[in-house]
Amino acid sequence: MMNYFDQNDERIKNDILVLSKMINENAEGYTRRPFTKWYAQSRKWLAEEMKKCGLDVQIDAASNLIGKLEGENKELLPIMIGSHTDTVTGGGRFDGIIGVVAGIEIARQLKEKNIKLEHSLLIVDFTAEEPSEFGISTIGSRGMVDNLTEEMLNRKDPEGLVLREGIKLAGGRPEDISREALKAGDVSLYLELHIEQGPVLEQTNNELGVVTGIVGIQRYQITVNGQPNHAGTTPMNMRFDALTGASKLVLAIEEIANKPYEEQVVGTVGRLFVEPNGSNVVPGRVVFDVELRSLNTNIVDHMVEQIKTEIKSIENSRQLSVSIDKLSQSDPIVVKEEVIKGIEAGCKGVGRTIYLPSGAGHDANQIAKIAPIGMIFVPSKDGKSHCPEEWTEYDQVAKGVKALGNALLYFDKRDNS
Amino acid sequence: MMNYFDQNDERIKNDILVLSKMINENAEGYTRRPFTKWYAQSRKWLAEEMKKCGLDVQIDAASNLIGKLEGENKELLPIMIGSHTDTVTGGGRFDGIIGVVAGIEIARQLKEKNIKLEHSLLIVDFTAEEPSEFGISTIGSRGMVDNLTEEMLNRKDPEGLVLREGIKLAGGRPEDISREALKAGDVSLYLELHIEQGPVLEQTNNELGVVTGIVGIQRYQITVNGQPNHAGTTPMNMRFDALTGASKLVLAIEEIANKPYEEQVVGTVGRLFVEPNGSNVVPGRVVFDVELRSLNTNIVDHMVEQIKTEIKSIENSRQLSVSIDKLSQSDPIVVKEEVIKGIEAGCKGVGRTIYLPSGAGHDANQIAKIAPIGMIFVPSKDGKSHCPEEWTEYDQVAKGVKALGNALLYFDKRDNS
Repeated sequence: MMNYFDQNDERIKNDILVLSKMINENAEGYTRRPFTKWYAQSRKWLAEEMKKCGLDVQIDAASNLIGKLEGENKELLPIMIGSHTDTVTGGGRFDGIIGVVAGIEIARQLKEKNIKLEHSLLIVDFTAEEPSEFGISTIGSRGMVDNLTEEMLNRKDPEGLVLREGIKLAGGRPEDISREALKAGDVSLYLELHIEQGPVLEQTNNELGVVTGIVGIQRYQITVNGQPNHAGTTPMNMRFDALTGASKLVLAIEEIANKPYEEQVVGTVGRLFVEPNGSNVVPGRVVFDVELRSLNTNIVDHMVEQIKTEIKSIENSRQLSVSIDKLSQSDPIVVKEEVIKGIEAGCKGVGRTIYLPSGAGHDANQIAKIAPIGMIFVPSKDGKSHCPEEWTEYDQVAKGVKALGNALLYFDKRDNS
Repeated sequence: MMNYFDQNDERIKNDILVLSKMINENAEGYTRRPFTKWYAQSRKWLAEEMKKCGLDVQIDAASNLIGKLEGENKELLPIMIGSHTDTVTGGGRFDGIIGVVAGIEIARQLKEKNIKLEHSLLIVDFTAEEPSEFGISTIGSRGMVDNLTEEMLNRKDPEGLVLREGIKLAGGRPEDISREALKAGDVSLYLELHIEQGPVLEQTNNELGVVTGIVGIQRYQITVNGQPNHAGTTPMNMRFDALTGASKLVLAIEEIANKPYEEQVVGTVGRLFVEPNGSNVVPGRVVFDVELRSLNTNIVDHMVEQIKTEIKSIENSRQLSVSIDKLSQSDPIVVKEEVIKGIEAGCKGVGRTIYLPSGAGHDANQIAKIAPIGMIFVPSKDGKSHCPEEWTEYDQVAKGVKALGNALLYFDKRDNS
């Protein structure tokens, strides 16, 4: 049965092109923010495409657009394929979009080839996956699994729109979110095709990535306190320079993240502020964020211990006072062996394939609360994402759709065998 | 003749207290910005105090307040004593102020003790010494030596005040600045008493500092260009992190400044910006300023060469592109041996004395263009300046006034002997 799945490459390309024109022309790049008229326009078009291939289209309480194809065996739990079509401001044409287009193309093929699935199939366009002005991301998938609190629903964006009202605008029913939410045992499997948003596939000359999991993220804020002295009148040996102390720490964190561990890790200082930040003042305080990501929480915890040891050493050697505070922690999601096996089977013969973790979060993070998840990555040119230059060759997207279709047929058959 | 100079400690303290009340009560600390009503109020009081002790009071074309005491020998060039009474916003009660108060107290003593000087004596309150909203400092002393360009005079502050108009408000005549400016050969010596604004006198348990010179300052901007990649999806070995590269450089600059040289140096990275500065983005660019100060320009040039070598090494090892651009350069001013000798004589027996360079700029920088200069420092508590906590014990200020008075008598006698 493998590689029997076929797709129409031109149609996929066309879908991407159509959506790339439903954007806010006054914003940079390709911008389609949720709860805007451009989002409504694209949703309308997606719903029509879903209907054309025989899907029963609904909008759920959290405003996710869902197309359902009834399966042959009513006893089996549905398989869900999804992603999102909102973009960041100044974003690109592929992030999220190809996952929704893939689902619709798969539904079209099933109809055209008259392939009957045992499981029901749910094709989902999740609402507002990208970081939003409400301070949260993956709004729709959160809502689908009842992970959207009242407090979140009551948040306002800078324009004064309350999230609850935004969801209503998109056709949702906020008051029904909890009652209608999916629970463990409602879905047999969630699958998502996505661009890698990183350089690994391209740099290793591969076409498909079997995602082994989605990394957990721990964020810390480190504050280095020294003394803000006059840069002209304070001799070198009488300084307590917060920036040279912070620089030592930034390099130590890089070194810690560069060590070999059982599982891949990344450690980043991306955000740093100097106070008072004047060319003629020895820095009195530096505040910076450290972000650590890995599929293995124990390794991240071990990295944090190493950072704390380094902090003590710098406090002593430079007579600085350094504090470290945890800002947030999200747990890693590990893709189940059996799901990896099925996706692996789906990729077989389609393209050069490797295994890699997802360093970014996805709607899959939310759906993992109620079902096993699996993901396929296709290459991102120059590793770029969330920018107008974001690019994946159309034939690479098509190979991703084929692998996803193959995997769907594999899983559909497996549960039924 | 040494140590014959006497001063009234209570009167000095009172002068400082009177001026500390002529401030903008709505601003932080002790704020008396130039060209404000509080500045006009203090100027009026200073002029009256000058008149009381028999000085002939004038405001020059650049709006400096000058009190003149005619000397016995009309053939000798005048000796000038000066400093400033403007403050930074949120400043203190001593910076500049004690130098002007010292001049007035010396004039009072000369009158009361009926001491006749051979040289004429000029006591100057220079206008707007501190960094101004016009982007320049030492405005009055610049004007006095014709170092205030038309372009500078036409600059506007954020409130729309043109510098030229500000000088008029303070009683000056901008159109006459060039014509009336002092030239080399117009003044025999310039002396200034100032707070150290650094920790050296206090930490070495000294009371008086004979200033050996005013350091030259070179400022550079360094830009480190890497690649702004996603912090989750970009493996450590595929990053071009501008911040870790910049951190290496910041530490290298510290190391270069910590090396032993023939003359004291300081090297500071006080101002640094990260782009895009998001916790989940590998820094793509870091821009920072490097400031190097020393009495010896050759040493600073040598430091810059070392920094450039370090830049090349970091470019190669980290595949980053780094540029360095000179922002500004001011030349050092070295106090003449004979002036140091006279100030040394003035300090003798008054308090524990050391020799040190001035790491900060002063009105003396400008007056050095036309006359030899000499400075005396008194201690700054905790090395603090430009803040409300700025503090010098009153008896330490008084010792500074005594040393300055002694030095004046020494120089007056010397030229006449």
